[in-house]
Amino acid sequence: MPEKNLTGLDDIVSLSKSRGFIFQSSEVYGGLAAVYDYGPLGVELKRNIQNTWWKAMTQAHDNIVGIDAAIFMHPKVWEASGHVEGFNDPMIDDKQSKKRYRADMLIEEYIQKLRDKGKAEKADDLQQQLDTTGTRNGLCEDLYEIIMQEEIKAPDSGAFDWTEVRQFNLMFKTHYGATSKDDEDAIYLRPETAQGIFVNYKNVLDTARVQVPFGIAQVGKAFRNEVVARQFVFRMREFEQMEMQYFVEPGTDEETYNNWLNKRMEWHKSIGIREENLRATPHPDDKLAHYARAAADIQFNFPIGWQEVEGIHNRTDFDLSRHQEYSGKKMEYFDQKEQKRYVPYVIETSIGLDRCTLMVLCDAYREEEVDGDTRVVLKMHPKLAPTKVGIFPLIKKPELQELAHKIEADLQEEYTVLYDESGSIGKRYRRQDEAGTPFCITVDFDGLEDNTVTIRYRDDMKQDRVSVDKVDEVIRSGIKSWKQ
Amino acid sequence: MPEKNLTGLDDIVSLSKSRGFIFQSSEVYGGLAAVYDYGPLGVELKRNIQNTWWKAMTQAHDNIVGIDAAIFMHPKVWEASGHVEGFNDPMIDDKQSKKRYRADMLIEEYIQKLRDKGKAEKADDLQQQLDTTGTRNGLCEDLYEIIMQEEIKAPDSGAFDWTEVRQFNLMFKTHYGATSKDDEDAIYLRPETAQGIFVNYKNVLDTARVQVPFGIAQVGKAFRNEVVARQFVFRMREFEQMEMQYFVEPGTDEETYNNWLNKRMEWHKSIGIREENLRATPHPDDKLAHYARAAADIQFNFPIGWQEVEGIHNRTDFDLSRHQEYSGKKMEYFDQKEQKRYVPYVIETSIGLDRCTLMVLCDAYREEEVDGDTRVVLKMHPKLAPTKVGIFPLIKKPELQELAHKIEADLQEEYTVLYDESGSIGKRYRRQDEAGTPFCITVDFDGLEDNTVTIRYRDDMKQDRVSVDKVDEVIRSGIKSWKQ
Repeated sequence: MPEKNLTGLDDIVSLSKSRGFIFQSSEVYGGLAAVYDYGPLGVELKRNIQNTWWKAMTQAHDNIVGIDAAIFMHPKVWEASGHVEGFNDPMIDDKQSKKRYRADMLIEEYIQKLRDKGKAEKADDLQQQLDTTGTRNGLCEDLYEIIMQEEIKAPDSGAFDWTEVRQFNLMFKTHYGATSKDDEDAIYLRPETAQGIFVNYKNVLDTARVQVPFGIAQVGKAFRNEVVARQFVFRMREFEQMEMQYFVEPGTDEETYNNWLNKRMEWHKSIGIREENLRATPHPDDKLAHYARAAADIQFNFPIGWQEVEGIHNRTDFDLSRHQEYSGKKMEYFDQKEQKRYVPYVIETSIGLDRCTLMVLCDAYREEEVDGDTRVVLKMHPKLAPTKVGIFPLIKKPELQELAHKIEADLQEEYTVLYDESGSIGKRYRRQDEAGTPFCITVDFDGLEDNTVTIRYRDDMKQDRVSVDKVDEVIRSGIKSWKQ
Repeated sequence: MPEKNLTGLDDIVSLSKSRGFIFQSSEVYGGLAAVYDYGPLGVELKRNIQNTWWKAMTQAHDNIVGIDAAIFMHPKVWEASGHVEGFNDPMIDDKQSKKRYRADMLIEEYIQKLRDKGKAEKADDLQQQLDTTGTRNGLCEDLYEIIMQEEIKAPDSGAFDWTEVRQFNLMFKTHYGATSKDDEDAIYLRPETAQGIFVNYKNVLDTARVQVPFGIAQVGKAFRNEVVARQFVFRMREFEQMEMQYFVEPGTDEETYNNWLNKRMEWHKSIGIREENLRATPHPDDKLAHYARAAADIQFNFPIGWQEVEGIHNRTDFDLSRHQEYSGKKMEYFDQKEQKRYVPYVIETSIGLDRCTLMVLCDAYREEEVDGDTRVVLKMHPKLAPTKVGIFPLIKKPELQELAHKIEADLQEEYTVLYDESGSIGKRYRRQDEAGTPFCITVDFDGLEDNTVTIRYRDDMKQDRVSVDKVDEVIRSGIKSWKQ
């Protein structure tokens, strides 16, 4: 079949809205920027991805346990982690429009404009100034100087009427509890879930009978007041992470890091993502985060280019040592066999659940020409499909409806099923293709005679005649044996 | 067996901490009041409850779909819902200690003290004044007057140095986005998940091919800056709700309300809660919330008394009508068959996931005397148990370990399993009793000969000799056929 493989993000956004995968948040009030709601199909897809990850991490590993730490944490956590001091973007406000911009991105856009106008030399010179900001005076001062010197105007208002450049923390802050001393009450929405694992590391050691090496897995929301939040669910202000921190003996960290990078790449393939759309990209040493000794992205070939879906990091003992320092509590592990004591190193695997959902949609999306028409179909792994089975009586006749409902009742103990009796069978198939439903069952009059139904497969549109008693088995083995 | 049935909340708190069900949040930093983290056993229990609810709501109902709306919503949502104006507690600050108190509770405690001192008449008089606050001047003014007149002192500092009484909104507020106009940026953490369903009602109607009556289910976090947050996970500032809003034609709302009350009560029994610990309590008409025509609690007999776990509410068309008014978007439903148009009524079922988890722990907790010793055991429904199967080699011998690991590998595709080879078999059984593990498998030397193992059951501690090939079947049917 001729098929259009490389889709635009617009196709995905549009299908997401029309079929109920993902909606703009608070749409009836004009929407809320950079936040999205999952609709009926989206929530099932997201839950399936999440459960698959959870099972692969905790259930399939003897030595990985889960936790679920709260979004609210003690403010000291974010001092220890470095977020209060270091989780900032340099911002500048346009006094006319009251709009706020990231100072470095303002300059980058300006440089791009220079290039577009053919002023390459000037652009190169500015780029070099930008690359060395922070080396002359402070970062903010250097950025401000460039903006003043070039008289860069505000993109929205066109004004040249700026405040100074200031560091703007990306954590959302709120006030907590019941005192009138507002400063003491400041609390943050966590900008990452990892710290919930670190502060519970001792609790897990004390209660779960684990020994190094062991891991702690967690799924949960995190929040960042990103200034440039865009590209659909790819970069949001509220998002969900699936993280696992693996605690190892120092010295074994490099090998473990490589193992997890490989294991995680295998997981992406196991959920049906096509190999050619995946790659691992190590971070060069000079681009590593302050806490990391090694880091790599697992990237997917999104319609917007290759982008990170998951990060694998060797965080060393940075976090546990900092929490030891800030809390005064020992974070050491005592190895009874070797009779030695150390602060474990941590290998982290951190995947964005929203990005992963977007990846599955993008990888699954196909447009195929079928009988002169375009068929939109989501060829995702059946285990991730929001609806597993569509059930259709051929026409609205009580005998057919009755058998269809009986099959529905039998299957819905185990699977998400959808009963649909409206429109032609062809239209009903197409609707389920767009939803990624791998199996459709049609009940017709012949079937009433010999207790059979037609099973139609999403991927190749082939149909089989199957005994009603075998339906469950066909579906089960169809899910298990599925390949791209 | 003699058993201690009525446990104190302390027993649950202590077991939760020692076995890793629930920890105080940010414990290494001295904790964060009224927030808790779920440990390795707790997160599995909570996930099992959540998945059971989700399946019962969405998968088992043709006409109920799920969504997952973000925590952040457009601020207008909370104006429409009435939360900006009405979700307040009257608070008063002690100027000395800077501590904040709920003015009405301060007076209630004072009245209780009067009673304790035998001053019943004075207490009755004050109680009557308290019951009629808001009828003389405003609510705040009336409360302030009583505190002044009685010279009620601050419980912590002993001072009589109060601010005025002010309304204090329970929603957490933060600043969002990238402008310097702080007021425009104010955004709230949702105090309930229900509104995420209401603002998506049209999206669901347009994409999910549902017809009234239909339901939308959702699980998610909500946040309330409760002043009196206590009693473990029973009342927290950050908590998780499982809500379903069922949209019906006006006139059919009463019947639907009664149906859902019954259905939800059945669900609580279906997850193994003992019938005698459950009751439904309708709210008297004069205690109904402003949006409700009828409401009932499903209550559980907690160690702290009968308390609400779930609420069933007839919310009428209050919410949809308000959103219609505030957004200017039509919230009507068009019934094609009857050719009529109306704003649906909503029947809501709203259950606290944390409370539900606490209920399961409280209901399951038993202390039994066994051989002169006390056995602590969690007799919860096996489908909720964090670990389904414990697997023990009798002693640390390679042959036994090998077979035990083989059984572990076979079972962990389907179940959460725990391999344990340390300590006596008796101790290992006890550890799993405390974790609520329904089945334990011991591999011994006899078994190596005839390919059998011992299965030991949590509830009655009976043991069966079973062929290794039958283990899976025994567990499956044990979960399915379980009864209190």
